[in-house]
Formats: sequence, C-alpha cells, structure tokens
Amino acid sequence: MLFADIDLLDENLDYRTHQWVGVRDGRIAYLGDAAPAGEDAAAYGEAYDGRGKLLAPAFYNAHAHAPMTLLRGYAENLPLQAWLNDKVFPFEDRITPEDCYWGTLLACAEMARYGCVSFSDMYYHMEEGARAALDAGLKMNLSDSLLAFNGEGLDELPVDAQNRRLLRDLRGAGDGRIVVDCNIHAEYTSNPRAVCDLAAFAREQGMRVQVHVSETRSEHEECQQRHGGLTPVRYFDSLGLFDVPVTAAHCVWVDDDDIDVLAARGVFVAANPASNMKLGSGFAPVPKMLERGVKVCLGTDGMASNNNHDMMQDLYLLALLYKGSTNDPSVVTPKQALEAATRMGALSQGRDDCGYVAVGAKADLCVFDVSGPSWAPMTNPLVNVVYAGHGADVCLTMCDGRVVYRDGAYPTLDVERAKAEVNARTQRIVGEL
Amino acid sequence: MLFADIDLLDENLDYRTHQWVGVRDGRIAYLGDAAPAGEDAAAYGEAYDGRGKLLAPAFYNAHAHAPMTLLRGYAENLPLQAWLNDKVFPFEDRITPEDCYWGTLLACAEMARYGCVSFSDMYYHMEEGARAALDAGLKMNLSDSLLAFNGEGLDELPVDAQNRRLLRDLRGAGDGRIVVDCNIHAEYTSNPRAVCDLAAFAREQGMRVQVHVSETRSEHEECQQRHGGLTPVRYFDSLGLFDVPVTAAHCVWVDDDDIDVLAARGVFVAANPASNMKLGSGFAPVPKMLERGVKVCLGTDGMASNNNHDMMQDLYLLALLYKGSTNDPSVVTPKQALEAATRMGALSQGRDDCGYVAVGAKADLCVFDVSGPSWAPMTNPLVNVVYAGHGADVCLTMCDGRVVYRDGAYPTLDVERAKAEVNARTQRIVGEL
Repeated sequence: MLFADIDLLDENLDYRTHQWVGVRDGRIAYLGDAAPAGEDAAAYGEAYDGRGKLLAPAFYNAHAHAPMTLLRGYAENLPLQAWLNDKVFPFEDRITPEDCYWGTLLACAEMARYGCVSFSDMYYHMEEGARAALDAGLKMNLSDSLLAFNGEGLDELPVDAQNRRLLRDLRGAGDGRIVVDCNIHAEYTSNPRAVCDLAAFAREQGMRVQVHVSETRSEHEECQQRHGGLTPVRYFDSLGLFDVPVTAAHCVWVDDDDIDVLAARGVFVAANPASNMKLGSGFAPVPKMLERGVKVCLGTDGMASNNNHDMMQDLYLLALLYKGSTNDPSVVTPKQALEAATRMGALSQGRDDCGYVAVGAKADLCVFDVSGPSWAPMTNPLVNVVYAGHGADVCLTMCDGRVVYRDGAYPTLDVERAKAEVNARTQRIVGEL
Repeated sequence: MLFADIDLLDENLDYRTHQWVGVRDGRIAYLGDAAPAGEDAAAYGEAYDGRGKLLAPAFYNAHAHAPMTLLRGYAENLPLQAWLNDKVFPFEDRITPEDCYWGTLLACAEMARYGCVSFSDMYYHMEEGARAALDAGLKMNLSDSLLAFNGEGLDELPVDAQNRRLLRDLRGAGDGRIVVDCNIHAEYTSNPRAVCDLAAFAREQGMRVQVHVSETRSEHEECQQRHGGLTPVRYFDSLGLFDVPVTAAHCVWVDDDDIDVLAARGVFVAANPASNMKLGSGFAPVPKMLERGVKVCLGTDGMASNNNHDMMQDLYLLALLYKGSTNDPSVVTPKQALEAATRMGALSQGRDDCGYVAVGAKADLCVFDVSGPSWAPMTNPLVNVVYAGHGADVCLTMCDGRVVYRDGAYPTLDVERAKAEVNARTQRIVGEL
C-alpha cells in the first residue's frame, strides 16, 4: 500500500504534513514528501488517499488477559477479593479452550478496531489464544501462568511442560508475530525455588518474562511480611528474575527504592490505569517512574476491569490522571504517554523494529480519520491524538503490512461470529453458576 | 419518529428489550412493548429500525465554555496561573463575537455527535453563543459573567444591562431551548455587594445562577483568608446566593461542612473530572457528595482543558476515577454516573421534563449502535454504556424530537464550515499573539 499525501507522526512523534509512505513486504519501505519516482510507486500496490487522515504508529498493548472479554460487565463495583473469589474464579473454572479462542478473537477485533496490533497476554489454554491472534493477523506475546503454592520447583509444575510445548509449536509462528514468553503470575502465587528455576529457563531459552507486581497494597505488604521486608520488586530481583527481560504489570504500590531497581535493571512497567482505578487498586507512580528513567508501557488488562480493549482510552487516562493526583499539570506529557502506548510497548515485547514510523520499521500503523469535529482546530496534532481523539477515529489498522481493520470491516476475522460466540458462551457459563 | 423494536434504558435506567417509542410534537408520546395500534403508528412519521441499537436519555452538559473550542490544543502542560495569564487570557482578548459564534457552533457539533443535547455555558458575547445553539437545534442555559473587582454594585457593572438585554431578547427562545441564567464568575472575581445584588435580581426574575466554586486550592484558601474563614460555599451561602437555584461548577476543594451546605440548600454541583485533572486542580469529593445527597451533574468545561465535548468520556471518568482515589471499587456506581450525565444535568438547567425516557418527557434521546465488538457480551447493558461504550457509538441524537445528528450527518449545521471557520479564526488569533 502507498499512503499518498498523508499527514503523520514520525519516529520522534513530530508532525509532518503531506507525506508519502510506501509499504512493501510488511515494512515501511519508503517515506518522503513526494510520491516515489516513476514505476516504483506501482510496486507498493493500492494508493491510499491520505487527505484528511493522520498516520501514526499502531498501539502495543503491554498487558492483557484477552479471553476475559467473556467476563465483560459480569462483576462490578466489588472489592478485589470478592471480585476475584466470588465472581471471577468460579466463572473462569468453567472456561473451555474453545471459549478462550472466541474470547481472544473478540479481543483481537476490539484491538484491531482501535488501532492496536499486538498484545502481551497471560492466561491459560494459550495455544487457543495464539490461534485467535494468528487468525486475526495480530501479534501476541503469549505466556502461560506459573502457579506454585507448595514450594514446588519448576520441573514439578505443569507449566514447565506447557512452556516447552508452546516453544516447540508456536515460537515465531506467523512470521514472528507470535512470541512465547515465560510467566510468573505473581509473588503470592509462586515460591522462590520456582522463580529461580523459571528465570534460569528463560535465560537459557532467550525468553522474556511477564509478571504481576505490587498491584494491590495487600499484595505488596504481605510480600514484605513473608520475605523479611523485601517488596515484590526486590524479592524478584534477589532471585535473579531481572537478569532476563521482564515486563512487570501494574507496579501500583512500588516505593522509591523499587523504582530505582526497575530503572537500573531495565524492567518494563506496564501501567494499567483503567483497571487499577476500576478495582480500587490505586494509581501507579508513573510520573516518578518516567522521571527516573523507568521504561513505562501501557496495557488494558482484562475486560472484567476496564471494560474495553481501546488503547486510546488508557492513553487518555495515562496522560490525564497524574496531573490530577499530583496537582501538577506538567507531569506525563502527551508525547510520553503516546510513546508508552506505541514504541515502549513494542520494545517491551522484544519487537525492536516496531512501534515507530520510519523506513525499515515493520508496517504496524494506524490511520486516524481527523474529519470529526473534535479534531479542529489542528493547533497541536499530538495533543489532539491524546486528549481530543477517540479510538473510534481509527479508520485503518495495519499489522506487518496487512490491513486488519478498515472503515468498519475486519478483513481477517468474522466479527459477527465472534460476538455471537462470546454472547452464547457467556450465557452458558453464567447459567452454570 | 417511531423507534421500532429497540432496546432501551427506561426512566430508572433499567434495561428493557424490544420496545416501541413514538415521538410526536417534541415529546415521547408512546412507549410500549408492541407497535402502537392501527393508524396511530403512522402519526409518528418515520419508523426507525431499532434492532441492534440501544436507546437512552441524551446527555446534558452542566458546565461548559463553548467558544473555547478555538483554544483546543493551544495551552498544554502548564500550571494554572501560567495557563490562564500567559496563554488563555491573551488569546481570549482577541476573540470577536463572530469567533464566539463559530467556536460555539463547533462545540454544538461535537455535543450532537456524542449524544448531548443541552449545555450550560459561561462566556461572553452570549447572544452569539445562543445564535449558534439555536441554529444547531440544541438547548443552552447561557450566562454572561459577572466580574466585579472594585466593590461595585450590580447596577454599576455592564453585566446588569447585558442580563436585562439577554432576558428581553432570548428568554425562552427556540420554544424554551434557550434559558437565560445569571452568572457569578467566582468569589475571587466578585465582591459581596455584587453577589447580593445578583442573588436578588435572580430571585426577582426567577432565574438560575451558574458559578465557579473552589476549583483550585488557592481559590478556596484565599477566600477563607479574605472572608474570616468562610469557604466559597459558606461565603456564597451567607450572601443569600443559594436562595435561588444554583449550579456550582467544580467544587474540588470543598470540605465536609461545605458538602452539608450544598446538600441542605439543594445546590447542583457540576463535576468536571477531565478538566480538573488536566489542569492539576485535583479530584472533587464526589463519592462523599453522593453519599450525603448532593445533586451531582457533569460538565466538560472548556476545550483548553479537556479537550473534547464528549460527555461519554467524562461519564467514564466519573464512574472510574474515584474507585482509584478512594481505593474503594464500590463508590460512584455506573447508574449514579449515568444519572449525573443525564437527568441531574437536565434538572440543574431547570428542565424538569427532560433527561429520562418515559411518556410525557421531552424527546431528548440518543441511540447507540451496539454492534461494535466492545458491546459483547451484553451481560450488563448499563455497565457497557458507562465503561465499554464510546461517544462515537452514538448514531442518532435527538433534541426536542428533532434529529441533530445521524450516521455521520448533522442535519442542522454545516460541520465542514464550522471546522474551517474555527481553524482559520484560531490561526488568525495565534498569528496576532
């Protein structure tokens, strides 16, 4: 595809008007302020009329539980423990592999709709999630949860065989769209031996790790009680986990020393502002993290606590929230927020050639229709994207050069079937409860 | 229009499926679970196929400065005083009456687009704002700011003649769509004599009053220093202002005693969560207000601090934010939030027959297209509206029975002209600065 005469946000998120962007073999192969010369233009295929549009890097969702679309609207206004124990866990006990496929496919439809091409996921039946992401044409860093309540080593846990099977069957599937990560659900659901084993396995296999860290106050404080004052961050660091690339989700209750550790060890922090608010967990100290050089990315989390996969909504929250909580309107600039939602997310997934608009990068793009009334005046396009725009203004989403959403249509998936399956499967499960 | 076979949120915001809603003479004239009998159906005019749609009360924006669409994206990441003094005031000095018309018309387009039919506005050149609202087919409670820095009584201020002229020319214009309110900009921009005079004038004329209250900490504390410990709420109460119906915008820094006064005197509080966060003002104590019976409604404020007129975005913030700030996921239920954005907003504008879906109410309605992937499963439609839906899912907005937005079209206004005018006028003003 050749995006012709289109305004865009370049690799520095600077605004450039009237550009031509040529996509070939899944990558941005041309970028200039005129059409490519002569016959070369035709080699890009369809010419896309870019007038009235804004091209931007696509979004990377750094923390999700995709199959939980099944639980959207199911458990509301409850304290976390009641939410989990009385509502979420009994529901999840009844989710089948096929349910996971359809729940993930619906999540993929939402992400494609709102300009997101890639997501880091923690759940179970991950081979079904991967099948959905592959069908949808999206990218996925999948991870199957390590849960070890009784001092087991990794070789005594089912996740060890699962990880090996996932590596064998899915590593690099879809031309690298699927990445198999390791996963430790959290400190309170694991033990030191299993954490050490998993860190060693990840290092040996060249894998990344996804983990929940200090989401709630009780999780943070109980870890300190159990481990001689070590917070979850310092506990994991002491076990060598941060010797491998890690994405730590939430980090709501981390203290100043934790932030220094996260910065020094290069840990990616996936902020989940919507979910952390909705469950009453609190506000992660994102301004301080950014100030000290922590690599902050952005996630939607699961649909029982968000309730949609629109990264633009979380982007808006990330840019807005901390100005209120710190009474300082200068913290978390629109550019920092958009970087978190794009380039930092891609890097957190080990996708170094993704998340920015420049020649050589993967063609992971979204196009905004900026004809709506909230986009005028165009005094500051970046500010308009972050604060005035909507996920619904995305009119085209492209992943590795392939269109996965365009003008209401989903070329890669049957969205009507996905909705109907999720509706029916949710009704079945609710009926069993 | 006859909405046929449509699901809806009724006057209690309860979900009802497969309903027929007939609109005639600007009001809901029929509501039932079958089509109106015989020839009666034809009397409603066009039959609207409601399948796959959700009908809900329209939104009422309880606090705005509509012409400030001109300033969208203009002043960002600045502390409040620098934002006001260095950016906003110099810009506003250059705004002409005609600029106000176009700025307001663009705001009306945004509101119609996102399901809002009515707004309470504080600005100047209000006759131009009213002209825009009338042209757009929307409702407006306009108010021209009282500013009195030197101990003047009302009769020494230009706003006195303006109020009388606005009453003469615009009271009840557009079949009651225009309501002329009184306005006191704020405690720090007025004096006790002018406040007393205005309260008396409003009482005498049967008018409502709009006022900014305790938006920032310094405003709140400096009032106490100036007035022997009286907070803005108690200061205004002591001057008799709350003897007339008042909408107090912001109320971020009100204390517990203030909240009791607001509840006892029946003052409407217009929460502006996006604006209060973006300017670093803080979080208004909405959960406590709701608990103590304060009538909370919802506003978008001006576009230099939001940055769009999408009430669904503020609704989402209202329902989400306080769960994070209080660490209690049970505060501000989706129903309370949606009531604030609909019925409470209408009541704050003195529009007692608006803001709910029942026979006899004004036909102020919005229709959501619920076919998008974020609306499945439909386990809890109200929760989906508040947390999963988007303003952009609105496919039809109706004000007093007249369609003001439908499927991308604005039957009452030229949105392309409004955008072009605002773009050009903003460029002119920025060029002068």
